[in-house]
Amino acid sequence: MIKGILFDLDDTLYNSSEFVEIARREAVKSMIDAGLNIDFEEAMNILNKIIKDKGSNYGKHFDDLVKAVLGKYDPKIITTGIITYHNVKVALLRPYPHTIKTLMELKAMGLKLGVITDGLTIKQWEKLIRLGIHPFFDDVITSEEFGLGKPHLEFFKYGLKRMGLKAEETVYVGDRVDKDIKPAKELGMITVRILKGKYKDMEDDEYSDYTINSLQELVDIVKNLKKD
Amino acid sequence: MIKGILFDLDDTLYNSSEFVEIARREAVKSMIDAGLNIDFEEAMNILNKIIKDKGSNYGKHFDDLVKAVLGKYDPKIITTGIITYHNVKVALLRPYPHTIKTLMELKAMGLKLGVITDGLTIKQWEKLIRLGIHPFFDDVITSEEFGLGKPHLEFFKYGLKRMGLKAEETVYVGDRVDKDIKPAKELGMITVRILKGKYKDMEDDEYSDYTINSLQELVDIVKNLKKD
Repeated sequence: MIKGILFDLDDTLYNSSEFVEIARREAVKSMIDAGLNIDFEEAMNILNKIIKDKGSNYGKHFDDLVKAVLGKYDPKIITTGIITYHNVKVALLRPYPHTIKTLMELKAMGLKLGVITDGLTIKQWEKLIRLGIHPFFDDVITSEEFGLGKPHLEFFKYGLKRMGLKAEETVYVGDRVDKDIKPAKELGMITVRILKGKYKDMEDDEYSDYTINSLQELVDIVKNLKKD
Repeated sequence: MIKGILFDLDDTLYNSSEFVEIARREAVKSMIDAGLNIDFEEAMNILNKIIKDKGSNYGKHFDDLVKAVLGKYDPKIITTGIITYHNVKVALLRPYPHTIKTLMELKAMGLKLGVITDGLTIKQWEKLIRLGIHPFFDDVITSEEFGLGKPHLEFFKYGLKRMGLKAEETVYVGDRVDKDIKPAKELGMITVRILKGKYKDMEDDEYSDYTINSLQELVDIVKNLKKD
């Protein structure tokens, strides 16, 4: 008997890859306009290397980019980048089509809904609130809170415990096989892989019970599961 | 011979007191709506005490408020407050009337213009960029950069040095007697006190060479000084 659904956030409930890519590119363009004297594509290469080396939650990507290009700290250029990034975030953060309607229908079916996500707690909450979908979720579990992220099984177990759910009565929805679907399946959850984001064209896998192209397909899947 | 002007930022170039007060009140209202179970005025009293104790640049005012009221960390409520504060900031940050026109006229007179301000570098730059007035300034000097703020004379000396100005050829414009006007006068600058913000009704002082109600009065003052 299905009692709840755990959702990944980035690229599962909204188009994270696209928003991040646009926000970074626009931020770099605005920094070049503010005096960062470098070719755009070259700047993007440096920035992407910094992000790869330091991780996406490192707070000083633009500081390091400016330092790498100009050899010094320049608060005007850095702040210009931060403001542009933020403005693009506010403008582009919207759920995937059908997300809100789907969450309403799942909620109406009496299911517990939760989000389990890697990332900084305040940053992930900011996305949920700006997306306008936070009221649908009974709990939001972040890797920062637990101290360990995906694909660690302990993190998923902690999420189930916080939700008061057992693995076998829980549907897991995520976009990544390695970090979402595989560990969820290993714990005994019913796994739904959503074909969105930059991993959507990965070859098929052995861990997904279902694959969907849009979140709304989830309603029929859960209805059928509830019949069993 | 007047060669440059140093401006204070908060409450001198825009209405900082009003914006901060509105942003804090709206943030607290939104936090109550998100589940912070407390009377509004009581919450404001707690928040104001936290701000007084920890200083305005402490990054966790809302965390501490939620902790004080609920006895625990609640990321949804904290993030709601942060987003509301930020939204109000973006909506309300505008220069005082006549500020841009005045800066254009002063710039056209061949003067060096600078900002010298207490606060975190990125936060102060964010205000200048959002206010749209940053291109008028040859330099922006913050207490974070120097390591010591107003009213320390060393900070003002550092500001003059960064601008390449001598005290006696510099006009200083600020709203506070104790932190702006007194030290500037002691160093030998020509001091202009703008009667704005929460200190505007303070009794008159012995350190202001001029007092103005609007920044545009500065143009005639500087014109007359340049005649000497």
